Amino acid sequence: MIFLKIFVDMLTAHTIKTIQSLDKKKYRQKYNLFLVEGNKIIKELPNSDYEITDLYSIDPEVLNIKTANETKILPAELKKISFLQTPKDSVAVCKIPENKVLKDVSIQLVLDGIQDPGNLGTIIRLADWFGIEQIICSNDTVDVYNPKVIQATMGSFLRVNVCYVDLEDYLSTYEHPILGTDMDGENIYKTEFPEKFSLVFGNEGNGLRPSTENLITKMITIPRFGKNQSTESLNVSMSTGIILGEIFSKK
Amino acid sequence: MIFLKIFVDMLTAHTIKTIQSLDKKKYRQKYNLFLVEGNKIIKELPNSDYEITDLYSIDPEVLNIKTANETKILPAELKKISFLQTPKDSVAVCKIPENKVLKDVSIQLVLDGIQDPGNLGTIIRLADWFGIEQIICSNDTVDVYNPKVIQATMGSFLRVNVCYVDLEDYLSTYEHPILGTDMDGENIYKTEFPEKFSLVFGNEGNGLRPSTENLITKMITIPRFGKNQSTESLNVSMSTGIILGEIFSKK
Repeated sequence: MIFLKIFVDMLTAHTIKTIQSLDKKKYRQKYNLFLVEGNKIIKELPNSDYEITDLYSIDPEVLNIKTANETKILPAELKKISFLQTPKDSVAVCKIPENKVLKDVSIQLVLDGIQDPGNLGTIIRLADWFGIEQIICSNDTVDVYNPKVIQATMGSFLRVNVCYVDLEDYLSTYEHPILGTDMDGENIYKTEFPEKFSLVFGNEGNGLRPSTENLITKMITIPRFGKNQSTESLNVSMSTGIILGEIFSKK
Repeated sequence: MIFLKIFVDMLTAHTIKTIQSLDKKKYRQKYNLFLVEGNKIIKELPNSDYEITDLYSIDPEVLNIKTANETKILPAELKKISFLQTPKDSVAVCKIPENKVLKDVSIQLVLDGIQDPGNLGTIIRLADWFGIEQIICSNDTVDVYNPKVIQATMGSFLRVNVCYVDLEDYLSTYEHPILGTDMDGENIYKTEFPEKFSLVFGNEGNGLRPSTENLITKMITIPRFGKNQSTESLNVSMSTGIILGEIFSKK
């Protein structure tokens, strides 16, 4: 009985509260921590640039990661610290790395105010698929360390550098072509893509903001083949996929 | 006071219960009805093949659709009959049309057991964008009249014929090439697409079932440009978008 009691109490109220607070950007920044869930992705962490500070698992033997702060927890405890509707097996608390901008990237994505975590997650996954190293985000783009974004990337956040900048400043000094996407640009199937460039996508509802639009070298568009004018334009992550598909078809 | 009372009671408990039941395929089939939400899409219904049987709106004047069974309702009532977390302005109850297979379609999509409503909705939206007239679904594919599917199509269900068949029977007698998608086929960028064909996508977790795979003329694949083997394969709706993007780049 005493053993069981100790076991169940392993997670203090303070720990639970701290982990739960990582749902909010404010607290992620305060503690400089974020959460990664599920053994499949957690297992990739030791081979990445990310550092695990604490690991909570219902079955640490399966995970088999040598970390100082490893805690075996009960499924009921996992439920308290997980952000998933159906919690998986483990939760890793990781350090948020320094926000750094890589130079000399051949093709990079630039996001101007993307708000939906699912869209950012999907775009990171696409970047990983196509081998794109970097995504530059405006400071008001949804935070990559938002648990919904991390989950939607399916582990791809480990392989793509996502960084935040003052977009106007950044693009003003960027030395290669800046291609923007909107409803009224050059047909992507007729575009010759340069060797090095930035591909910019705007906010889900409002598109590119004027200060970004002013810095665009060329606008490109996915042509609509359906004849009906009522057809909604494609979602930003789907547009990213189709445009990357076209860029890489020419590689 | 009396007026207000009558007004609030306009939706009977029976009506509310019937509409709520349309969340389930069983009841959609029993009543042969489904729900369309939001003025934007409802306004397109009169110009489509769909027939509205009842219209419930918090502001019918704005909708301005001449229908016999139009009911002005209160926002609180709308909340009871809407399937949306944030109900819009109106709900239309529509007749489910006959399940018909169009012949002589040039390029069509075939779905073998797609389960996720969001995926089906996104694929219908893509079909509409690319002007694809028909999506053939295996009988166990998620129902197009599922409210989540209808919502995810953003109105595109009005312009694409989605029908359900015994897939093995159907494909056995189909007279044009049948292209399948998997992780291990011909590079889509090297594929010459025929004039008329079916493009088949499998279930999210299990891919194509063997009885379908047996009938495939050629397997095609989106090549991965990223070098990391841990990268998850692309989601089925994203794959559909990228492959359609490539097919139409050659049109």
